[in-house]
Amino acid sequence: MPDFSIAVDLGGTNLRVAAVSGEGQLLEKVTVPTKTARGPERTIDEMCETINRVSAKHKLSGKFLGTGIGVLGVIDMQTGTVRKSANFPGWEDYPVRAEIERRLRGYGVLENNSAVIIDNDANMAALGEQWLGAARGIANMAVVTLGTGIGGGIVLNGNIWTGMNGMAGEFGHVTVEPDGPICGCGNRGCAERYASASAIMRMAREAVASGAAPSLAHAASSDAEAGAKSIYNLALQGDENARHIFGTFGRYLGIMLAGAVNVLNLEMFVIGGGVSSAWDAFAPKMFEELRERSLVYAATAPANPLAVSPTSREEIASSKTETLTSGTTIITRALLGSDAGLYGAARAVMLAG
Amino acid sequence: MPDFSIAVDLGGTNLRVAAVSGEGQLLEKVTVPTKTARGPERTIDEMCETINRVSAKHKLSGKFLGTGIGVLGVIDMQTGTVRKSANFPGWEDYPVRAEIERRLRGYGVLENNSAVIIDNDANMAALGEQWLGAARGIANMAVVTLGTGIGGGIVLNGNIWTGMNGMAGEFGHVTVEPDGPICGCGNRGCAERYASASAIMRMAREAVASGAAPSLAHAASSDAEAGAKSIYNLALQGDENARHIFGTFGRYLGIMLAGAVNVLNLEMFVIGGGVSSAWDAFAPKMFEELRERSLVYAATAPANPLAVSPTSREEIASSKTETLTSGTTIITRALLGSDAGLYGAARAVMLAG
Repeated sequence: MPDFSIAVDLGGTNLRVAAVSGEGQLLEKVTVPTKTARGPERTIDEMCETINRVSAKHKLSGKFLGTGIGVLGVIDMQTGTVRKSANFPGWEDYPVRAEIERRLRGYGVLENNSAVIIDNDANMAALGEQWLGAARGIANMAVVTLGTGIGGGIVLNGNIWTGMNGMAGEFGHVTVEPDGPICGCGNRGCAERYASASAIMRMAREAVASGAAPSLAHAASSDAEAGAKSIYNLALQGDENARHIFGTFGRYLGIMLAGAVNVLNLEMFVIGGGVSSAWDAFAPKMFEELRERSLVYAATAPANPLAVSPTSREEIASSKTETLTSGTTIITRALLGSDAGLYGAARAVMLAG
Repeated sequence: MPDFSIAVDLGGTNLRVAAVSGEGQLLEKVTVPTKTARGPERTIDEMCETINRVSAKHKLSGKFLGTGIGVLGVIDMQTGTVRKSANFPGWEDYPVRAEIERRLRGYGVLENNSAVIIDNDANMAALGEQWLGAARGIANMAVVTLGTGIGGGIVLNGNIWTGMNGMAGEFGHVTVEPDGPICGCGNRGCAERYASASAIMRMAREAVASGAAPSLAHAASSDAEAGAKSIYNLALQGDENARHIFGTFGRYLGIMLAGAVNVLNLEMFVIGGGVSSAWDAFAPKMFEELRERSLVYAATAPANPLAVSPTSREEIASSKTETLTSGTTIITRALLGSDAGLYGAARAVMLAG
């Protein structure tokens, strides 16, 4: 009869609701398409109905600890609303937290004062990787997720560092090239304009348009996810144009990380998100920049950072003591994939309890 | 009979030893020239002798809480040594912390297990501004000190955030221009190559050498401190070359701060150090960059950031509740000047007690 939490991940494509045991076992996972474009009411209705169904089932065999909810985008911690986002049209003034709590109370899910924790998905993913993933046992770390854009979350002393308004960890909008391409945030030369799937596609389209990279023409006309994968495959096959793009990707990701290492001096940065699977193509240049650009990294880097790339929970668990005692800065790949946010949401409930 | 701590600031020019009451009164301050070039033994001897003398005197009238010591440069928290630094030739392998403790034990200063806290001077300055200066009552903040270079310290939840090895807060070596001028740290385009006294002098010399700025010739041939002041005065008088230099200064300081605000989402960044007195010349451009380059700052900035520039402890104390409840990011000038590190060192003792 394991204790369990309900973990929710509300993304742009899917709503996922899971039951996770206190030991970190994924007991059940329900995935339904997200309907955020129809407005908040229907999405929150469906979320809470699913939470109720999944929790009711597992309450038969274990103690219910509470509900953790990760939401794509920035949560205003003071008002419990979602800040304006392309993924959530018409949600700006909707009191997400209050409405979720009201519905869960109606279902009786909030009985016994069980917690409801809401945070953004990147913060939850950071907590998940810290609890059960690449940073298991490491108290101070950050996750940088490379997807369509760049997300980020910071964990200090084992807890999410939300910052004053829940906006900490915006690694993707750190300036890495003062006069670089315009970003949707209003800035120029943000990290995510160089180190994301959309950045790969931008660079490919620009290379094709200049006439210099006919080999990328097919990939550059695909959608972002498929196109980025094609360009990665071309890079692996030695295509110079594709390799150049991933070199630029690694350079600017390294510049951003070098700044973050200098400011935060964390034990570990975990690189996740779909585009992190192109690690082999961008990591060598990323580490080169880190060594040159961060005196903190240079003073604390492992001798062979590319070799520190755990592929299983067990491997990182066995190496963690060495990592901590030697005071090195580890930059490595995420382990939990898209489930990191679910594990983190469950962990957030346990930390609040 | 006030409780008191001994606060020490070991800088490149002076060693200062002070007695500070638990309420933050500076009871006494002794300043002697630093002799770091003669090696660690003589400096530590003199420091400990002075600590003994000052503490003995004040022990007659109050309870001694302990000793806090801020050291210019980076302290390795694990080994208690000073990392290699131009200011401390031959100190690399000297066990500073152990040697200080040994001498103080000899003097009986460590009786009753009173604490000895050692940290770098920028961290101590951050804690001082947080305790009694511009960030009084604000739990999460950072100090950026603009001097010959750039120093930095971060306070989270009222305590110094040292990072894993005591190296957090290296704001000066964040890359702000990937192909910018070479820095002593091995990187190119570090923030301190644009926003420090030495950067002002570099820009002035380059402008003079190009033949474009004869008005700066006299200032550019002075030493760094006097030259930077002259160029500031020229900027105030409307000299276009001098104004251009401070515009570049503000631009890159703003780029660095925008990244820090995006990552940390702190309530306040306090700008200190000797060059912060040129605030009027660089702050407008700095705030312009912050608004354009940080979505977090844009979402949380006060309406008129230049007006948020407290000139007394009382003023900031009366405004602090408003600051906290409105969730704004305040970027303002330091209040405690060169005494910030002494107050912080005293505070560090109180926090450890």
